[in-house]
Amino acid sequence: MQPLELSGVHPPVGVRPTREVLARSREAVEAVLRPAAETLPASMRRIAGYHFGWWDEHGRPITAAGGKAIRPALVLLSAEAVGAAAGTALRPAAAVELAHEFSLLHDDVMDGDRTRRHRPAAWTVFGVSPAILAGDALLTLAFDVLTAGDRAAAEAAKIFSAAVQQLLDGQSADLAFEERDDVDPVECLAMAAGKTGALLGCACALGALAGGGSPEQIDRLAAFGRDLGLAFQLVDDLLGIWGDPETTGKPVHSDLRSRKKSLPVVAALASGTPAGDELAVLYRGEAPLAEADLARVAELVEAAGGRAWSQAKADEMLAQATCHLRSADPCPRPAAELDALARLVTRRDR
Amino acid sequence: MQPLELSGVHPPVGVRPTREVLARSREAVEAVLRPAAETLPASMRRIAGYHFGWWDEHGRPITAAGGKAIRPALVLLSAEAVGAAAGTALRPAAAVELAHEFSLLHDDVMDGDRTRRHRPAAWTVFGVSPAILAGDALLTLAFDVLTAGDRAAAEAAKIFSAAVQQLLDGQSADLAFEERDDVDPVECLAMAAGKTGALLGCACALGALAGGGSPEQIDRLAAFGRDLGLAFQLVDDLLGIWGDPETTGKPVHSDLRSRKKSLPVVAALASGTPAGDELAVLYRGEAPLAEADLARVAELVEAAGGRAWSQAKADEMLAQATCHLRSADPCPRPAAELDALARLVTRRDR
Repeated sequence: MQPLELSGVHPPVGVRPTREVLARSREAVEAVLRPAAETLPASMRRIAGYHFGWWDEHGRPITAAGGKAIRPALVLLSAEAVGAAAGTALRPAAAVELAHEFSLLHDDVMDGDRTRRHRPAAWTVFGVSPAILAGDALLTLAFDVLTAGDRAAAEAAKIFSAAVQQLLDGQSADLAFEERDDVDPVECLAMAAGKTGALLGCACALGALAGGGSPEQIDRLAAFGRDLGLAFQLVDDLLGIWGDPETTGKPVHSDLRSRKKSLPVVAALASGTPAGDELAVLYRGEAPLAEADLARVAELVEAAGGRAWSQAKADEMLAQATCHLRSADPCPRPAAELDALARLVTRRDR
Repeated sequence: MQPLELSGVHPPVGVRPTREVLARSREAVEAVLRPAAETLPASMRRIAGYHFGWWDEHGRPITAAGGKAIRPALVLLSAEAVGAAAGTALRPAAAVELAHEFSLLHDDVMDGDRTRRHRPAAWTVFGVSPAILAGDALLTLAFDVLTAGDRAAAEAAKIFSAAVQQLLDGQSADLAFEERDDVDPVECLAMAAGKTGALLGCACALGALAGGGSPEQIDRLAAFGRDLGLAFQLVDDLLGIWGDPETTGKPVHSDLRSRKKSLPVVAALASGTPAGDELAVLYRGEAPLAEADLARVAELVEAAGGRAWSQAKADEMLAQATCHLRSADPCPRPAAELDALARLVTRRDR
């Protein structure tokens, strides 16, 4: 096939070699991607940086071959092709590259491919679930980068994608806690704030934003949703141990069967009580827990104060949420309904 | 804790019971979600509809308990709390619900949870990889729904999310093909158009859009990228069999080791030649293929015409891409660089 001829027999002036086009595209996009990646939660950032070839598995800078930047080059050249400067298309170029990298992360997991760009694929280094989450994070970041310039959609997209990132970060911490014996209740609450609080806070903020609320109203409604999320997670964790299977749709003691480090369990383990120590021994085992063991584990969590702590924390978070709601100066009818919803979610409605 | 009191001793007028608030929120959001879900590729739609509790695993309508719609209710009430109508916040409400459902799909995969809302979790019904992809699809749809109203960011987001959905649909078809003996080259090309063509087409469209190109220019540059993507995939599949490990970063015959149904293999299997039939027998086995077997498989693909067919198709797609590029009336310098890039990507640069 002949190269494209667009101006008769002579090639147009200033045509750069493809190697240079790609190198410049990679450079231009990396200037957007590096600071964008810095906005990722640390748990996602290290996997992303490894995958991009910026860092080794410990986060130390390396020079590995990254992607070829074909997609960003297509974006930038297409902008130029219609007469604009390449700089007008930097954000979509970075977004497309992020979407590509996201799909590679998930692809390698799904296909079980162990090698990517001459290095061990991210999932072989960080695990399958972290690699799935990191892919999710890059996809979210892609949207964030794409809409970052347009005021109108940008604010909603910013709030939204920040929440998804926090959600992924929380899920990632949740996975990490399963491997650790020394999780303390404070970091467990921070995890729950990400895993559950972020999206509830985002829900309120987006509603207030769409409704034309003031920045203060948006902030306070966001805080209401966030704290409500924490209260909700505490209640959910209580139900994961003591909930009625008819209501929860899960087997009795379901969170204990999988030795899940839910908030009541973490509080019990950190209690320094004899019951907490006995619980630690049972939780460290590998063999499946029999029904009698499960009942004993539940008793130990309660005896070590995990149940009472969780209930008290849930009450505290709910009170704090209500306080935020009040401070948002909300219209009375929806405010009362939000309050009722908060009580429903935290099982305070009966 | 006491219910929130915002207007002295009397509750505000017209406060609806929470059950009604949730039911209305669910209804309002479902009116956005159902048509939004219809825009998903079929492969994603059936998993989403199952997960939402709309359909059984065969796509037949059922009435299963869906989510409680707590998050959408928070969005709608927060809009009302700042004095607006709930209807102003329908899109963010749907987007937040989609992000929640996305995280549940991935969560169940990561945690190995087999039950969700009293039904088998989606991954137990459709498989792990399809559930991961369906989650990705819902996250993408969330952004699409969120930005659907704002002209400026909306057009870019629409193009972008459509491409991500096509990418996921292509990956899904790719997974499905691994289970089938009767994949034909035409559907395999359609899969590649999604898996690889969509994002390259999107790259060009976004660049042209950002650069202020006309709708025709955007379309034609998109077609250029799409066909280039197909050519690229064909070349990539050829390299997956006959590529030099030094260049590809993968072991020799890597796609054959995993019995991947790449385009040359599918063409060979569908050839009706004796070599194709012998190949089918080797590909149907379960035992790992020894080095000698791999060399034989590569020979059979070639003898059955799979290599020549892929090379011819790659040439045809590249020619078609170039034709689209020319018809976009592009500026000469970037057009020449796009052409060179296309030749690089398809290994026609040497």
